[in-house]
Amino acid sequence: MNTVVAQLLDALGSAVSTDPIELDSCRLDKSGHVSASAPLAIVNAASIDDVQATMRIATETGTPVVVRGAGTGLAGAAIASDGEIVLSTLRMTRILEISQDDELAVVEPGVINGDLNAALVAKGLWFTPDPASRAISTVGGNIATNAGGLLCAKYGVTREAVLGLKVVLADGRLLTLGHRTVKGVTGLDLVALMIGSEGTLGVIVEATVKVRRLPTGTPATIGAYFGTVEDAARAAAVMTTSGLQPALMELLDPRAMERIAEFLGATVRAESFLLVQFDGREAAEEAVAALAVIRSLGGEATLTANAEEANALIALRRAFHPALEARGTVLIEDVCVPRSTLPAMFHAIEEIRDRFGVDIVTVAHAGDGNLHPNFVFEGTEVPAAVWEAADAMFQAALRLGGTLTGEHGVGILKKRWLRDELGDAQVELQRNIKRVFDPSGILNPGKVFSAGNDVSTAHGMRAALTE
Amino acid sequence: MNTVVAQLLDALGSAVSTDPIELDSCRLDKSGHVSASAPLAIVNAASIDDVQATMRIATETGTPVVVRGAGTGLAGAAIASDGEIVLSTLRMTRILEISQDDELAVVEPGVINGDLNAALVAKGLWFTPDPASRAISTVGGNIATNAGGLLCAKYGVTREAVLGLKVVLADGRLLTLGHRTVKGVTGLDLVALMIGSEGTLGVIVEATVKVRRLPTGTPATIGAYFGTVEDAARAAAVMTTSGLQPALMELLDPRAMERIAEFLGATVRAESFLLVQFDGREAAEEAVAALAVIRSLGGEATLTANAEEANALIALRRAFHPALEARGTVLIEDVCVPRSTLPAMFHAIEEIRDRFGVDIVTVAHAGDGNLHPNFVFEGTEVPAAVWEAADAMFQAALRLGGTLTGEHGVGILKKRWLRDELGDAQVELQRNIKRVFDPSGILNPGKVFSAGNDVSTAHGMRAALTE
Repeated sequence: MNTVVAQLLDALGSAVSTDPIELDSCRLDKSGHVSASAPLAIVNAASIDDVQATMRIATETGTPVVVRGAGTGLAGAAIASDGEIVLSTLRMTRILEISQDDELAVVEPGVINGDLNAALVAKGLWFTPDPASRAISTVGGNIATNAGGLLCAKYGVTREAVLGLKVVLADGRLLTLGHRTVKGVTGLDLVALMIGSEGTLGVIVEATVKVRRLPTGTPATIGAYFGTVEDAARAAAVMTTSGLQPALMELLDPRAMERIAEFLGATVRAESFLLVQFDGREAAEEAVAALAVIRSLGGEATLTANAEEANALIALRRAFHPALEARGTVLIEDVCVPRSTLPAMFHAIEEIRDRFGVDIVTVAHAGDGNLHPNFVFEGTEVPAAVWEAADAMFQAALRLGGTLTGEHGVGILKKRWLRDELGDAQVELQRNIKRVFDPSGILNPGKVFSAGNDVSTAHGMRAALTE
Repeated sequence: MNTVVAQLLDALGSAVSTDPIELDSCRLDKSGHVSASAPLAIVNAASIDDVQATMRIATETGTPVVVRGAGTGLAGAAIASDGEIVLSTLRMTRILEISQDDELAVVEPGVINGDLNAALVAKGLWFTPDPASRAISTVGGNIATNAGGLLCAKYGVTREAVLGLKVVLADGRLLTLGHRTVKGVTGLDLVALMIGSEGTLGVIVEATVKVRRLPTGTPATIGAYFGTVEDAARAAAVMTTSGLQPALMELLDPRAMERIAEFLGATVRAESFLLVQFDGREAAEEAVAALAVIRSLGGEATLTANAEEANALIALRRAFHPALEARGTVLIEDVCVPRSTLPAMFHAIEEIRDRFGVDIVTVAHAGDGNLHPNFVFEGTEVPAAVWEAADAMFQAALRLGGTLTGEHGVGILKKRWLRDELGDAQVELQRNIKRVFDPSGILNPGKVFSAGNDVSTAHGMRAALTE
């Protein structure tokens, strides 16, 4: 038996698994990437002690560690390969505290976002980060990727919802970062540094998160069709400029609506579609103002305060990913541009689609300029033309003042473009900061900016692996 | 002539000052601390080039640099002493861009917070960070200290208002951090790391900040007297728990009101006073609900939507600091505790006042649990009993789950308590991160967590120096 595995078994007993099927399940996430080989072992940590014991053994033996929650990541940051220990937080699911008075919750990292919200709703509270994966993704994973979602323009990203963290360093030491207070400036903001660090700096073993009171009032929901995607994008921009603050504002391009119509067998028009929802006490008033904006830009809109009708509109958006997956293999991209350049980015995507002859279908969180252009292709390997088109798309986003990734992270998927956005000097600085936390480079080597051997992966092997 | 000064003059000409009066002005800030000796020179940088040239010379010659804005800091982070270069950003005052569409502004670091807001208000916009010093403090300084203020419970601290930064490193290299988008997760969040770093990591030379639309509607303002400070604190806590969101909620203890009454010669009651203001379209409705909470806890309140009457109430709060300064030398503290423990912290302060026989007068940003207990004493040196009482107060705040400093920063004032809050391992980690940015330790040595010789200072010498 491998000596590292023997040490893990000795220290952690039944928390350690080397079951081949379990090991294989850690070779992939939701990015479509699959590592070339299975990891060494999985530690299903149930406590901070378990995490510390694992990291001590990893440091002593120089063994790489991939921290993993529910494996719902979209950039390959939590996939593991040969010689690596997977440190799973999925058994650390306790909600340690919910404070209505201080509007916070203290949780273990493996608690599912949806489970935390189910516990909060009974107290009239809400954890606002809402990645599309919230029913299946962990709070620890949300924090490790600084997850976004549909409600960020109004309610912020995960970074805005975390007050404090307990973190186990590469060498097994436990640190307490941040605080329970809403303000605090003692020293450098290491909580913010950990958020979005994708498993490269330390293991998040506990989080103190901000919670909000649930909005009151009846939501008002609008579905609007537009003749061109640029007009729909313009309507979204004008709404924000008018001081309206939708909770949700999703834009689907005509190709997306076409696929959704086919998938649902519904009589949906193959035109650009803007889905807008207002919440809170002013919802109805804001929605009326939004309707005026939409109609002034040629949009054909319906407004409803009826929950069933609203759900029918939202169901169109929810059908987006299943509709694409029914048609082929999907590579989800995640550029984010300044809101005002959303029409220009849509135009650039159309141009890139034509130039490279690839199929791109786009949905955007229009309120914050975050687009998910989805490349759809046949087979299990990403065609060269898709990578070339993706490259052109990233360059277009950067030219417009945007970023490679609004909410999915870098992982292995965007590593090759990192320097284009950050520049050499900043990449070097980031690597040096990583070395402070993890001098021997055992935390998620080969991911994000970190030096070390690239993980050998193939895209689209998932089907083969899980069949 | 000193060779460093000669090099600076050669590279930067008239931007360099060695005028003794100007040099002396950099020995102090608003903390009451004064350095023991004057710095070497001041560079009044007018451009990023000037900053880079200064840092290159500083690195070549191993000369420490203290970055300084308006000198309004309350923790001594920007005071300079013998052998140090002061790098002033006060001439970098351009507002480079205001975008209504993207709700952002791009500014140089020396622009005064109030001047930026004056430029924004014409466009219906607003930069929300509102330290009490906003009429005289710079945006760069607000960012370097992660400044808070009166409106943070509703509108957040400076960290929430910064999208991107240009930073000159110790060696003179220019980095661009963050982006113009509201979302972005490419690599580690170095913008957040810079915010609140108090001049220890780099020189902020440009900032892209979020701006908001100005709130609509007429503000509703409440002034309420309470029999005990604990009851006033409880009313503040219950308001938050009831889902009310005041823009401003200030709590003054009876001793504060007594001094304010004397200072203004006004008929103000020497009882605990809670000042609450709601803004936005629901202001009136929220204020009525707040009145009910206040009265249920025995508060005696008046509510007004009249601007003049509101200003009269706010004038009481504004008179707090002048009233104390008229009575003696003031040491302003800045603990922050979880909101629910605000009554307990007030109780602890009263106990400490009695135990150490010192004069403590307290105002609190009650909405976010941030208290400013002010020690008032005679003469120019802080009496030993005041330091002992401050120590007891910090320990009490930490016991309640709070922090040493909610918004003023560590500087030199709180250095001695840093390990009590962060622990040895985290302080070491923070120092190592600083070394990545500033390997030769020339940026603000002796401040916050940084190693190096402590700056020799005395408290309360300001009067002597400025007379």
